[in-house]
Amino acid sequence: MLRQQVHEISIQTKGRGFYEVTDQIERFVSEAAFTSGLLTVHVCHTSASLLIQENADPEVRRDLERFFARLCPDGDRLFHHTAEGPDDMPAHVRTALTCVNVSIPILGSCLALGTWQGLYVWEHRVAPHRRRLALHLLGE
Amino acid sequence: MLRQQVHEISIQTKGRGFYEVTDQIERFVSEAAFTSGLLTVHVCHTSASLLIQENADPEVRRDLERFFARLCPDGDRLFHHTAEGPDDMPAHVRTALTCVNVSIPILGSCLALGTWQGLYVWEHRVAPHRRRLALHLLGE
Amino acid sequence: MLRQQVHEISIQTKGRGFYEVTDQIERFVSEAAFTSGLLTVHVCHTSASLLIQENADPEVRRDLERFFARLCPDGDRLFHHTAEGPDDMPAHVRTALTCVNVSIPILGSCLALGTWQGLYVWEHRVAPHRRRLALHLLGE
Repeated sequence: MLRQQVHEISIQTKGRGFYEVTDQIERFVSEAAFTSGLLTVHVCHTSASLLIQENADPEVRRDLERFFARLCPDGDRLFHHTAEGPDDMPAHVRTALTCVNVSIPILGSCLALGTWQGLYVWEHRVAPHRRRLALHLLGE
Repeated sequence: MLRQQVHEISIQTKGRGFYEVTDQIERFVSEAAFTSGLLTVHVCHTSASLLIQENADPEVRRDLERFFARLCPDGDRLFHHTAEGPDDMPAHVRTALTCVNVSIPILGSCLALGTWQGLYVWEHRVAPHRRRLALHLLGE
Repeated sequence: MLRQQVHEISIQTKGRGFYEVTDQIERFVSEAAFTSGLLTVHVCHTSASLLIQENADPEVRRDLERFFARLCPDGDRLFHHTAEGPDDMPAHVRTALTCVNVSIPILGSCLALGTWQGLYVWEHRVAPHRRRLALHLLGE
């Protein structure tokens, strides 16, 4: 019999960077004890995103940060919306270029993340922020 | 008892730009009267995307447009597929860089959009187009 | 009565490029014989993505490849993580800029893909790889 659960978690960031939530998410999934199903995670913000990326070598995440800093530098003169500082609009652009929600199947009682896939909240603002995630879990 | 609903809506665009559909989507969700659930929206096109972004200062959307116009300018000599004009291939690239579907949990009878999150159809073609959205709603 | 099914498929790639999986996915959906529902596909890797894009003129996909090769060239001196070669980090960046999962409603017994929408595994590594996809299907 199919059932669903919803949940909310919040993450305190220390400013720009990656915050892994794989363990928290997997704990929520394993407590539901579904054999198969679907997990959806949504980040309720416009200047932080969700990224599924390599959780082995941390240099991958530093390189991602270098790439996005070059692609969309803080203080870019192109932008008019600078109310909250030089990282305000770049944070919106980075969010638009990535994702704010992901849906991952559950197979054999486990989240179907690949061997190297971790789930991260990617904080794009320089200052610390509290980020809220909404979770939906479906399964049986 | 879990139930689902599907629905289709279409949006007439006036050419490149953002068309907010948050209200229409929320109306569909509130009519279903689910306490909790999951809404999925899919745009059935390859030159328009769905974007969840700030719905307060409209300058944010104009800056997003400026950024994508610089990143992937119309008439770029890189492109061979120009059958439908200088904005044809840039529209496909912009779509690839953003998303064509989003899934948002429903918590406490409401779509878990953050305070500043609005849902937009982002028309990437210069000419007006009719854009079709497929909706799926799950909940109880 | 709502039901779900999960499934796993794997795709052998020949290296960088697009591998259409629309037919395989539609076969899985049609065998379930749901009138309406939701299909989710997740690629279990950090250097390959899922892309819904035009399946008519193949030049569109070649232009997408040209654009991403210019945006994020192999061997870019910006990157430190080069353990697996010059295409290693660009493959992670391309994956971050696109999507690793998609959710598509089923309406009128069919996947709600638009006329020109095909679903592709986008292999970002130069060498051949076996890519695993996890599928979740919900419906009735």
